[in-house]
Amino acid sequence: MRKERKIDLRPMLKPQSVAVIGASNNPDKVGHIILNNYLEEGYQGRLYPINPNDEMVMGIRAYKSVLGIRDKIDLAVIAVPAAIVPMVLEECGRAKVKSVVVVSGGFAEVGETKLQDKIVAIANKYNISMVGPNCLGVMDPRSRVDTLFLPTYKLTKPKVGGVSFVAQSGAVGSTVLDLIAGEGFGLSKFISYGNAAQVDEVDILKYLMNDDETKVIIMYIEGVKRGREFLEVAKKVTRVKPVVVIKGGTTDAGVAAARSHTAALAGSNQSYEAVFKQCGFSIAKDLDELLYFGKAFASEMLPLGDRVVIITNGGGTGVLTTDAVYNSGLRMAELSARSRAELSRSMPSTVNVRNPLDLVGDAGIERYDKALSVLSEDPGIDMIIVIALFQTPGADEGLALRLAQYKKAIKKPMIVISIGDKYTRDRVVLMENEGLPVYDSPSAAANSLAELLKYYKYKKGIV
Amino acid sequence: MRKERKIDLRPMLKPQSVAVIGASNNPDKVGHIILNNYLEEGYQGRLYPINPNDEMVMGIRAYKSVLGIRDKIDLAVIAVPAAIVPMVLEECGRAKVKSVVVVSGGFAEVGETKLQDKIVAIANKYNISMVGPNCLGVMDPRSRVDTLFLPTYKLTKPKVGGVSFVAQSGAVGSTVLDLIAGEGFGLSKFISYGNAAQVDEVDILKYLMNDDETKVIIMYIEGVKRGREFLEVAKKVTRVKPVVVIKGGTTDAGVAAARSHTAALAGSNQSYEAVFKQCGFSIAKDLDELLYFGKAFASEMLPLGDRVVIITNGGGTGVLTTDAVYNSGLRMAELSARSRAELSRSMPSTVNVRNPLDLVGDAGIERYDKALSVLSEDPGIDMIIVIALFQTPGADEGLALRLAQYKKAIKKPMIVISIGDKYTRDRVVLMENEGLPVYDSPSAAANSLAELLKYYKYKKGIV
Repeated sequence: MRKERKIDLRPMLKPQSVAVIGASNNPDKVGHIILNNYLEEGYQGRLYPINPNDEMVMGIRAYKSVLGIRDKIDLAVIAVPAAIVPMVLEECGRAKVKSVVVVSGGFAEVGETKLQDKIVAIANKYNISMVGPNCLGVMDPRSRVDTLFLPTYKLTKPKVGGVSFVAQSGAVGSTVLDLIAGEGFGLSKFISYGNAAQVDEVDILKYLMNDDETKVIIMYIEGVKRGREFLEVAKKVTRVKPVVVIKGGTTDAGVAAARSHTAALAGSNQSYEAVFKQCGFSIAKDLDELLYFGKAFASEMLPLGDRVVIITNGGGTGVLTTDAVYNSGLRMAELSARSRAELSRSMPSTVNVRNPLDLVGDAGIERYDKALSVLSEDPGIDMIIVIALFQTPGADEGLALRLAQYKKAIKKPMIVISIGDKYTRDRVVLMENEGLPVYDSPSAAANSLAELLKYYKYKKGIV
Repeated sequence: MRKERKIDLRPMLKPQSVAVIGASNNPDKVGHIILNNYLEEGYQGRLYPINPNDEMVMGIRAYKSVLGIRDKIDLAVIAVPAAIVPMVLEECGRAKVKSVVVVSGGFAEVGETKLQDKIVAIANKYNISMVGPNCLGVMDPRSRVDTLFLPTYKLTKPKVGGVSFVAQSGAVGSTVLDLIAGEGFGLSKFISYGNAAQVDEVDILKYLMNDDETKVIIMYIEGVKRGREFLEVAKKVTRVKPVVVIKGGTTDAGVAAARSHTAALAGSNQSYEAVFKQCGFSIAKDLDELLYFGKAFASEMLPLGDRVVIITNGGGTGVLTTDAVYNSGLRMAELSARSRAELSRSMPSTVNVRNPLDLVGDAGIERYDKALSVLSEDPGIDMIIVIALFQTPGADEGLALRLAQYKKAIKKPMIVISIGDKYTRDRVVLMENEGLPVYDSPSAAANSLAELLKYYKYKKGIV
């Protein structure tokens, strides 16, 4: 059965027409929330609510079945009780619906494996690409497809960007999605595929590999069903774009928990880690790192070596960042004689010309400018960490925007560390919206740069 | 000389009267910002600006010298050029000023060691306790003492609480202080002591050990000058309250950077780590952990063992937290037969009764209530991690407040994990303000509980 599947996720993510099966005027119903998403987010395609009783749903003409629609349906979102999913899916097949997202639960995750097998067979029979069941589904901020049935006021939706996020778990999916909304990089696709009855991580990776809107893939997975295919596809993906992965169930206790959660064959941590490394994946140890690494890759920076310079307006933060660079496996660069001479000439006597370069607490734009113009040209430096602590008198919006200009102008990877409460966070948003990655901890910054280099080396075949 | 010092920090942190030497009507001057802090924050003691030229400073009668004041001065804040610090300090001595904070730079950190020795000699001669020079100074939100010369709009000031923060570095000091403002636990004392010419970490620990307002001490240090005294005092402190420390300069590169920063004898990392462990300190690997651990200790929770239960409304987050518990060195608890029976009876069939206990995405207050009432009584459970993901329909303010009630009612350590953007963060503030520690990452949560247990064992002499 598996081999005959013809999976195409494009009609699901870029549909010209969407049917919402189970759409309802009752605001407590999942089908209501999903239809409301399409309306609120201004979906531009043709929209068809399916409801057996009501003639109108949320002000739109409703149909009793997809069979009644005289239009080609690219995507049907199915939000009806599990028992009647086979029937509506059969109707979708006869109506030549191209893809479905089954958000309904009540299948293999509660032991109803036969019911799940049944819907897979129907989907395969009609060449329907099916995500789910028991999933949050998909989101694409460009096409404004959104099958998530969570209250919109509880979840900030991310802006358009280049990071696609694949999460088997709906809980991890929705929380990380919520966090992505606060990041500068923005979202390309979100796919939460639940029980993975038909479409699985292999199909999703294949699609995202060829999706030009996706620059980086970040994933949460608990297990992989088709190991050999996964390995094969994953290796192809990392030739064209980076993948960051976090695995749920990396310890014995965690594996047992994962088995109870998605019935995933979580396997041993060692074997997964080996596979991920072989594929050139970046491995995140925690959800924080999933976002930290994703952020670095999203800026599409390419390091050519491991030598880092640190420019700071805070001595102690420079010390901690030096420790973090060393611990990440990167090296502190040696400034060239020319850099040292130029900096000694232009900096005040309180600035000790070395690496980390401590511009001292009263530094403003001028000193950062001199440091960056000299050090971005130093051939002994591969990457730049700028620490900008906005609690000091000289650091303000002007500095934030200037740093963002440098990021665009120079070729070497450059990231910023800024740590603080509201005033700082507002400046961080400024920088991130200009494409400059900002970190709130020295180790996050250094470890993210180290991942960039690992990926670069993997692609070049150096490791 | 050292042995004859009589250090008393009480007049500095709880002064009845404060002189600001260098107070100015010019808003760009450090002395202006400091005087303004006292006025803005409503300091209730007697305030004396010292300015050689102006009769009034910021609407208050000014004096040409502390010698002109007919009052006993508990604290003089000195913000004048380095060259005239000896003169004004000598005047402080003759006026019987009890303590001084020298914020002025231009001493040992730029090679002026003789000038620094001179002011130490004057302070010792007159039994003045002196913090600095080259420091941010001190803050106490209860007495409203605040010598920080950073623009107040750039730095959110923390509320009153039980955590005292000692930071040699002003940069680390001000950024972490800014972050503490966003935490529920609040600040007892902030002491940033710069060159540590006279008062050093040993004196500060001695004071904080006996300070009833201080429940927890968190520290950033780059080096210790009086090793033996430090060890002796530190061991006494951890008998009465926990200390969390982060060391700047734990790698060769970092040690070199620290030497250039505060001329600290940073020493080898191994020897420091050994000393810290011997003292029963909690060692933070990054600034995040300094706050994470501080937050757990601030809630004054006492674990009696290493068996953790996880209650969650998100399966994947439960899996990741299980991994984190295992990796932290703690154990997943086995639920008692009685707990299992009671939960099986009261939970819907979608809830699989095991640890982690996944209440499933549609859980509301009722299910959390049942889980907590049963598991808080289970003798096989030592600590409770509650995952509350507020993106789900059933999780709201009501749940946040109920969880905070449980925290107050039960004896076992209990913390929460909530991850998300604005809606979630507002609920997190609710919980934290009620004294319930909330973490934004599984590993932060698990590692913090593990630190509580380590400290408990240290105190009991188990390790």
